[in-house]
Amino acid sequence: MTSPIQLSDPAFVLVRPQMGENIGAAARAMLNFGLDRMRLVSPRDGWPNPAAAAMASGAGRVLDGAGVFPDLPAALADCHYVFATTARVRGLHKPVLTPEEAMARARDMMAAGQRVAVVFGPERAGLENDDVAHANALVTVPVNPDFPSINLAQCVLLMGYEWRRQAAGGGVADGAGDGGRGGAAIPDPASGGEVSRLADHYEDELERAGFFFPPEKAAGMKQKLRNMWTRLALTRAEVQILHGMLRQIVRRKGGGGN
Amino acid sequence: MTSPIQLSDPAFVLVRPQMGENIGAAARAMLNFGLDRMRLVSPRDGWPNPAAAAMASGAGRVLDGAGVFPDLPAALADCHYVFATTARVRGLHKPVLTPEEAMARARDMMAAGQRVAVVFGPERAGLENDDVAHANALVTVPVNPDFPSINLAQCVLLMGYEWRRQAAGGGVADGAGDGGRGGAAIPDPASGGEVSRLADHYEDELERAGFFFPPEKAAGMKQKLRNMWTRLALTRAEVQILHGMLRQIVRRKGGGGN
Repeated sequence: MTSPIQLSDPAFVLVRPQMGENIGAAARAMLNFGLDRMRLVSPRDGWPNPAAAAMASGAGRVLDGAGVFPDLPAALADCHYVFATTARVRGLHKPVLTPEEAMARARDMMAAGQRVAVVFGPERAGLENDDVAHANALVTVPVNPDFPSINLAQCVLLMGYEWRRQAAGGGVADGAGDGGRGGAAIPDPASGGEVSRLADHYEDELERAGFFFPPEKAAGMKQKLRNMWTRLALTRAEVQILHGMLRQIVRRKGGGGN
Repeated sequence: MTSPIQLSDPAFVLVRPQMGENIGAAARAMLNFGLDRMRLVSPRDGWPNPAAAAMASGAGRVLDGAGVFPDLPAALADCHYVFATTARVRGLHKPVLTPEEAMARARDMMAAGQRVAVVFGPERAGLENDDVAHANALVTVPVNPDFPSINLAQCVLLMGYEWRRQAAGGGVADGAGDGGRGGAAIPDPASGGEVSRLADHYEDELERAGFFFPPEKAAGMKQKLRNMWTRLALTRAEVQILHGMLRQIVRRKGGGGN
């Protein structure tokens, strides 16, 4: 028997899966994103399935913990909200969501204490209308209509990815809030003073080398250089490298040319 | 030969892929999300590869159009911004982005007319530091640290999914209006080839000046420098300034010291 779904994670329900290998691959895909609540409805080749175990390898514990049910209603008995993944939109009057919308909704429901399941149909055929009837909403991965063929484990992978992204607070508000370098703060940025001293170092040596010529353009050229150093958003380590490079070239020069 | 990347889609670059089956599976995953600009760097078993074609089946045209290159710099020569997918964050001072942040950034850059590539390492081993040195930013899929093993085609699938999601206007604007070179595309970025020539110029002169000392540390120092040049996301104008600075200092030195 399966334990009840933890409030922190949705159950992934595989309906009438055929190949054990695909069940194993789905277990791997789930665990890649930290999910381990698998439920199986009437797997074709019975259960347990050695081919599933062989494919799952490191994710065997997902299979070990899987609940097996004779039909979909039994598998969903304790769930408050059910998403059915489907390749094509049918003539059913249910909301059709993207994975992103679905997993954002799942996150909100689970935060409110509800139990959520995501249902996947058998290889090739997909869910039947009778299965879909048990779902509250449909989820469709926005694949290329000219080449829509993703397999069961890939569909599980994408839903797992979206779940993790939404659960981690990704999605809508994401990306903002790091004033500065866009998404990823660089580690150990140089301070304004450090960049300024670097700019001085280069300016001094370039002055000596006659770089700022003709004189009436010198001020503009220096400003352009300062702009560059600050725009680059250098790390402290890079500032050290740039000092070292210049020092070495100049030292060599001072030493009497080649 | 490969045709230039269309402005509407990023190139997906597979570096030293081993099994033809995985190249074929990657082609399928790309086409699932409408991507068909594949580039291959030094595929282990040569090219074309019958095992790749067999696995790709309906996505064979992605393979037929793939560009094959002897090394990564050649594959990236026409690219303005390069994302490297990597399982672990290394000690490199480059931005580390989620797939979402990376593809949002790619979308903005491509909207500004820039060419973007996403680089994937070989099965198991992943990208080497020398490869990563050619990238402007890293992308890490936020997998379960206790079970992080996604394969090449799965990584391609997730990046393709995110690309399509962002290109369709999903997600939200990346990184907020960051002054600097963060999310927003910088104007007139230097191409990979231009940055590579700048790196060569500095490396040659520093070599002559005895900068790479002691010899056993030279390779690491050079890699560090390459990393810095690519990380800076230089504009074409900045590349010119940096060439000019070095030329002037060296010329002055050649002229016989002070």
